[in-house]
Amino acid sequence: MITFQIEKPDEKIREALIDRINSLAKPKGSLGRLESLALQIGWIQQTLRPKLLHPVNVIYAADHGIADEGVSQSPKEVTRQVIFNFLNGGSGVCFLARQHGFEIKIVDGGVDYDFSEIPQIISRKIRKGTRNFLHEAAMTEEELEKALQIGSDIVSDCHQEGCNVISFGEMGIGNTSASSLWMSCLTETPLIECVGAGSGLNAEGVRHKYQVLKAAQENYRGDSSTLDIMRYFGGYEMVMAVGGMLRAAELKMIILVDGFIMTNCVLAASRLYPDILHYCVFGHCGDEGGHRKLLDYLHAEPLLYLGMRLGEGSGAVCSFPIVDSAVRMINEMHTFEEEAITKYF
Amino acid sequence: MITFQIEKPDEKIREALIDRINSLAKPKGSLGRLESLALQIGWIQQTLRPKLLHPVNVIYAADHGIADEGVSQSPKEVTRQVIFNFLNGGSGVCFLARQHGFEIKIVDGGVDYDFSEIPQIISRKIRKGTRNFLHEAAMTEEELEKALQIGSDIVSDCHQEGCNVISFGEMGIGNTSASSLWMSCLTETPLIECVGAGSGLNAEGVRHKYQVLKAAQENYRGDSSTLDIMRYFGGYEMVMAVGGMLRAAELKMIILVDGFIMTNCVLAASRLYPDILHYCVFGHCGDEGGHRKLLDYLHAEPLLYLGMRLGEGSGAVCSFPIVDSAVRMINEMHTFEEEAITKYF
Repeated sequence: MITFQIEKPDEKIREALIDRINSLAKPKGSLGRLESLALQIGWIQQTLRPKLLHPVNVIYAADHGIADEGVSQSPKEVTRQVIFNFLNGGSGVCFLARQHGFEIKIVDGGVDYDFSEIPQIISRKIRKGTRNFLHEAAMTEEELEKALQIGSDIVSDCHQEGCNVISFGEMGIGNTSASSLWMSCLTETPLIECVGAGSGLNAEGVRHKYQVLKAAQENYRGDSSTLDIMRYFGGYEMVMAVGGMLRAAELKMIILVDGFIMTNCVLAASRLYPDILHYCVFGHCGDEGGHRKLLDYLHAEPLLYLGMRLGEGSGAVCSFPIVDSAVRMINEMHTFEEEAITKYF
Repeated sequence: MITFQIEKPDEKIREALIDRINSLAKPKGSLGRLESLALQIGWIQQTLRPKLLHPVNVIYAADHGIADEGVSQSPKEVTRQVIFNFLNGGSGVCFLARQHGFEIKIVDGGVDYDFSEIPQIISRKIRKGTRNFLHEAAMTEEELEKALQIGSDIVSDCHQEGCNVISFGEMGIGNTSASSLWMSCLTETPLIECVGAGSGLNAEGVRHKYQVLKAAQENYRGDSSTLDIMRYFGGYEMVMAVGGMLRAAELKMIILVDGFIMTNCVLAASRLYPDILHYCVFGHCGDEGGHRKLLDYLHAEPLLYLGMRLGEGSGAVCSFPIVDSAVRMINEMHTFEEEAITKYF
């Protein structure tokens, strides 16, 4: 199985960073979350002058066998339809990426459609969708390993191209269902607290989704290890995101975390390598049932609370200017000394 | 007394805006607050294609007589010192303004220092600081009217220069004290719930501040009208901000609201002209005691919760990219129809 070398950043620089932030001409602590973010990013990058370079939003896309059980408001073909909307620059994350200067990379990790003629899509299809986990494991062990490797390789390419801050998004009808099972199994939270409306189920739809997922959870006979839960219930796009996140942490990149599905990928990644959490900036608290609880479980403080639940990395990209503000603060603000301001604060 | 013609935007366009937002290729409601913001801005501008033009952050600055009572962690001279830091581009709001393309206008409305040689400062000094409201009214009726007019005129200039989205900031040691009294008197909230730490008082300092303000409130013998409360306890910079906000609403500009002090200015302005609230976008919930409560009182939903309490308009400017995202969403996202996406949502 692929392994990663993820190190906690060296603590030695922390004191100098705190001194620098407190020397800036403002009442101590008055820039709130910008100050703690600047500290985290300076610590990750081991410098008093951090930089954000070539941001990329990687969207892993794949279909899910469980979608056949009617657990989503949207039919499977919406996965490929939305991918065409990415290509046309018209989807939710596209305008945000243009606004904040993100490159978007679209990875076909297992969509039930043949994109082979389209050069803008990075073709890494493992299979045309996972198997239906109501009846069998969604993927084989070989597929799991392959997906982790593919996710990781994509991030290596981004890093090679100069990226040091990366967000991950997904497209895959059925993936809130897979995520709910990861959350419930990995955190031992009752499934009912992990299931939400996805792209817009009504109460009856959520009830049906819960019943299907409950039956799947009861059918599961594996060893309950993180890797086995990932394999049994996962989507290819989700496992790729786990591999991508782990590689990003190995490369000391800043990971911007999106909504419910990507937070579940952080959860799984952190079960394998707890030190990944030092590299994560949680972009937002989304509106999907279970996300707030999962963020609390991870002791995560999201930057935005805007009631978003679109996926595609949209919440993470939307939060980027806050991260940028924090980096500008530590680089651009003048100090009390430089400005001869009475430091009564 | 100066008057304003503030109209509620015409409701007729609302349905077309909602249809447009719901036609965008995303699960209905899945962009959360961006959708309600796009609706508000389209409604203000009476168009399905809103635009944000030439954003300006106006900083009104003035000193407060009450600062002589030791109600602030910082001595009065910090007001002018921070203004020099604005000029040097090194203050908290400066890096945010550069990041988001805001022009900064600095207005000396009553600082206890002579800036007459400095052309970058808009010189509108009414007096070198207000009187000490522990003993007498902070300003005269003539000064109140003059301050409203000055604030308004500055915004007329911004509008003339092409600005349609404006934030207001302040600099004035002592102005959280003045704001606490506005809040308590105008909302009939017990003073204790309106007093906070300002630029960084400790518990003992907050206690002293409260006692001074309580005595001032007990000494007050006016008619409790909004204008009289503004006059008795106000700062020149705060009254100017009220005048500026009212003029901005009259001109159908989008008003980005900053922290505790500027929210008190919205409160006062809305007592005079309730329809101003349609034009306000509340940028953030700050960390100053009383701000959360005041936002609730105004039924305001702030965009950011970042624990900021710097003033200068910093929280409002920091929230600008979210507003920009909302406008980009309604202009740039493709519709279900354009993309032939199955509208199951």
